[in-house]
Amino acid sequence: MPLKEGDSVVIWVDPKRVFLVKIEKGKKFGSDKGTLDLSTLIGKEYGSTVSLSTGVQAYLLRPTPLDAYNGLRRPSQVLYPKDISYMIYVSGIKEGDTVVEAGTGSGFLTISLAYTVGGKGRVITYDIREDMQETARRNLSFMGLLDRVTFKLKDIRQGIDERDVDAVFLDMPDPWNTIQYVHDILKPSGSVVIFVPTVNQIEKTVLKISEFDFVDVHAEELIVREYQVKENATRPKNIGVVHTGFIIRARKSIKGS
Amino acid sequence: MPLKEGDSVVIWVDPKRVFLVKIEKGKKFGSDKGTLDLSTLIGKEYGSTVSLSTGVQAYLLRPTPLDAYNGLRRPSQVLYPKDISYMIYVSGIKEGDTVVEAGTGSGFLTISLAYTVGGKGRVITYDIREDMQETARRNLSFMGLLDRVTFKLKDIRQGIDERDVDAVFLDMPDPWNTIQYVHDILKPSGSVVIFVPTVNQIEKTVLKISEFDFVDVHAEELIVREYQVKENATRPKNIGVVHTGFIIRARKSIKGS
Amino acid sequence: MPLKEGDSVVIWVDPKRVFLVKIEKGKKFGSDKGTLDLSTLIGKEYGSTVSLSTGVQAYLLRPTPLDAYNGLRRPSQVLYPKDISYMIYVSGIKEGDTVVEAGTGSGFLTISLAYTVGGKGRVITYDIREDMQETARRNLSFMGLLDRVTFKLKDIRQGIDERDVDAVFLDMPDPWNTIQYVHDILKPSGSVVIFVPTVNQIEKTVLKISEFDFVDVHAEELIVREYQVKENATRPKNIGVVHTGFIIRARKSIKGS
Amino acid sequence: MPLKEGDSVVIWVDPKRVFLVKIEKGKKFGSDKGTLDLSTLIGKEYGSTVSLSTGVQAYLLRPTPLDAYNGLRRPSQVLYPKDISYMIYVSGIKEGDTVVEAGTGSGFLTISLAYTVGGKGRVITYDIREDMQETARRNLSFMGLLDRVTFKLKDIRQGIDERDVDAVFLDMPDPWNTIQYVHDILKPSGSVVIFVPTVNQIEKTVLKISEFDFVDVHAEELIVREYQVKENATRPKNIGVVHTGFIIRARKSIKGS
Repeated sequence: MPLKEGDSVVIWVDPKRVFLVKIEKGKKFGSDKGTLDLSTLIGKEYGSTVSLSTGVQAYLLRPTPLDAYNGLRRPSQVLYPKDISYMIYVSGIKEGDTVVEAGTGSGFLTISLAYTVGGKGRVITYDIREDMQETARRNLSFMGLLDRVTFKLKDIRQGIDERDVDAVFLDMPDPWNTIQYVHDILKPSGSVVIFVPTVNQIEKTVLKISEFDFVDVHAEELIVREYQVKENATRPKNIGVVHTGFIIRARKSIKGS
Repeated sequence: MPLKEGDSVVIWVDPKRVFLVKIEKGKKFGSDKGTLDLSTLIGKEYGSTVSLSTGVQAYLLRPTPLDAYNGLRRPSQVLYPKDISYMIYVSGIKEGDTVVEAGTGSGFLTISLAYTVGGKGRVITYDIREDMQETARRNLSFMGLLDRVTFKLKDIRQGIDERDVDAVFLDMPDPWNTIQYVHDILKPSGSVVIFVPTVNQIEKTVLKISEFDFVDVHAEELIVREYQVKENATRPKNIGVVHTGFIIRARKSIKGS
Repeated sequence: MPLKEGDSVVIWVDPKRVFLVKIEKGKKFGSDKGTLDLSTLIGKEYGSTVSLSTGVQAYLLRPTPLDAYNGLRRPSQVLYPKDISYMIYVSGIKEGDTVVEAGTGSGFLTISLAYTVGGKGRVITYDIREDMQETARRNLSFMGLLDRVTFKLKDIRQGIDERDVDAVFLDMPDPWNTIQYVHDILKPSGSVVIFVPTVNQIEKTVLKISEFDFVDVHAEELIVREYQVKENATRPKNIGVVHTGFIIRARKSIKGS
Repeated sequence: MPLKEGDSVVIWVDPKRVFLVKIEKGKKFGSDKGTLDLSTLIGKEYGSTVSLSTGVQAYLLRPTPLDAYNGLRRPSQVLYPKDISYMIYVSGIKEGDTVVEAGTGSGFLTISLAYTVGGKGRVITYDIREDMQETARRNLSFMGLLDRVTFKLKDIRQGIDERDVDAVFLDMPDPWNTIQYVHDILKPSGSVVIFVPTVNQIEKTVLKISEFDFVDVHAEELIVREYQVKENATRPKNIGVVHTGFIIRARKSIKGS
């Protein structure tokens, strides 16, 4: 299916130059490797190549959440793909599910949640900062996922409006202050998945979780190593991200029953 | 919604005793912690608890792919959740997609693929061993996902029947021997994601990939550490899995275009 | 130099069967792979091989601290080679130095300390358990290092007798309770190196250290991965130790000067 | 003991500004944090503090091999402390030993070897580049260890002059090309310890080692994570070194004996 105006496309120049753009007539894409008149993309196919103004070749790719991570601006610290992928997997969410998230941040986890729950699913995302939600809205729009998401400018530590949700995702400094509300709104057997950067937060969060009816509680850390492959000289890359944070998960139970 | 005959349910006794069963009248669940007449589960809710014959409490949970991993028999070496979650994420697959997989093995990756592509998606899975596919069929049936999967008892190194698929997943000893066919059948911009246990396989696979029109090629390793949380005594667990394998990914491009 | 009665020798059968013994006439070595009359070792050379009663070959090796770790009984949890080696290196200790250690435990760190400070160095080791110190004495004797070590059956949290020592090594549950004494007895610029298993202990210890005149404070964790090498199938080993503990180090300064 | 002309001293400004200098009258130390007339250090004690020209405080520390690593210029890629410490430990070398090393590089491993074998030990270090050995000489001189080291401007793949050495350390691109000579010159039970950056080199080296009489062969990788300690916010640091290389070790045996 040929690209048309309004489509999103990844312009992949090299591993460090990945850009997610929306095709608009009259708009120009610019990078240190050259520029490109975006209207020239109309009629091209995903997977094909284009030449930037400098003659440098670039690839046109169909956007995935990982491209969103690499290709959109990230004004705030955002979750890494290694963490997002595991958080989604362990939560067990799937097409059609309803999930609640806080905080919205730049919307990168929101993108992956909306991508996963699909056209009939729903993501409700809370944040107390309007500017962050504006950024998130723009990012979701680039991915064509904006209509699956409800934004709430509200402090999730004051309560959560939804009921019977399939999963809750928390990326906030003090998740222990909303655990009670999370328990209230989860479906039985539904997952809460939490990201925290420090070990102290693991401890506080897990201890708070243990005060409520939750089961299958785990705290884990994911580490990713990229390999540099050359004939006869393959090895892990030298420098990289050593730490992002920890993932805590639990499932609501209804013990008394 | 109360449980009924034919439903699948996770019987969660403790982190090392997780069982995925199907409710059948007259069938008994057995473990070293006690037994349970499965018909007594009818009418219960996911999230609630039951007492085994010994008085030990167990939780009834709604099955996710992670529960399949923990709760089904694994006659062969299978992919770990940390690897499956990342493979699915980086592939960019979503509801409605068509994906090809080889080999089927015990069907644990198949379960996650079928779960992700949803009711309108399709998984075609190749293996040369009929016994493995039988196991996989049973495992998919436990998850209620059998109807999304087509089984092919065929050597994928001899060719692939499908065309224009969204992604291909390979977990086989010599993926380089089918890369040409994988390139043929992928949609432009579609992903191939490959799992291999040794570094030599990384090198061979990536070098073979570089002979075809692929872009965004990466080889990565995921490591997971579980934490043991106790008040004032939180630390990583002592013993664990240090290595499973490496994940290679690439996206098809159509250079000449 | 041929082996003689009283010499220590490593009987290396395979990587999981390493034994450190002392040659005594009339004594027999026993393992599940066969036995050996130890007097038959007299006159042999380090590096040579012997046949156990079963015909299984074993190697005779000159004992190093790593052999002590692998070849002596460990009734208590002991420090791992990866940690011991780094603790000694960062401490900067060398031949002729005087070092204080607590607790003694089974004496495995003591062995490495005594090995490093050499014939003119001195290790003073504190523990409150006499039975542990008995084990440590026996282990040091197997390594021929007993005369470099002074044992003190005393609670190091009540004070330390020595003065102007080159380094202090702590492997105890509450190192923060002796930091003041450690500062008192260290030479200026001397190192304290501390091993703790939990993250909470890191925090408490480092915060306590920061109350005194110390500089160059670090908290680190060492992880080791062993590789399994086969032609065309080289990879990290699958299962292993994921966590032992954390190493904290600091050097005494004399700020007011 | 007060500092005097010719003494080496570490000027420790902060964790990223560590300098190893030799006290010379009339010489000035310079850094972006201020300068210091080195003759003013005479009469000071290790562990005390000085003020740089800017008023910034710096600590005077007694140099250890780790300070050499942090405080000397490194014109070439050098071994990391985590690797050096483990290489020395597993080798079993001690005061009085004779060890052979190739290549010399900037002399950082040489410093640690000379430090460990002590005043009666000997390090013979081979390299084919005279400029590297000049750098190494200067670095060893800063540590006061030059008289324990013999430099040989020779290709170790052409043969090794020494006999009956306690250990051999190799940090060179093709260690397999000198393994035969290494076996020849090692004492029985003596260790060879090898550092290589790629997995292919592990395989080639270990396969070559297996052609000779060696025992206790291992290939390992050390990973270090530094922790950032703050009250209630302790966690691993975010960015760091993910990979340096692999350590291979083996001990010479004399099978036929």
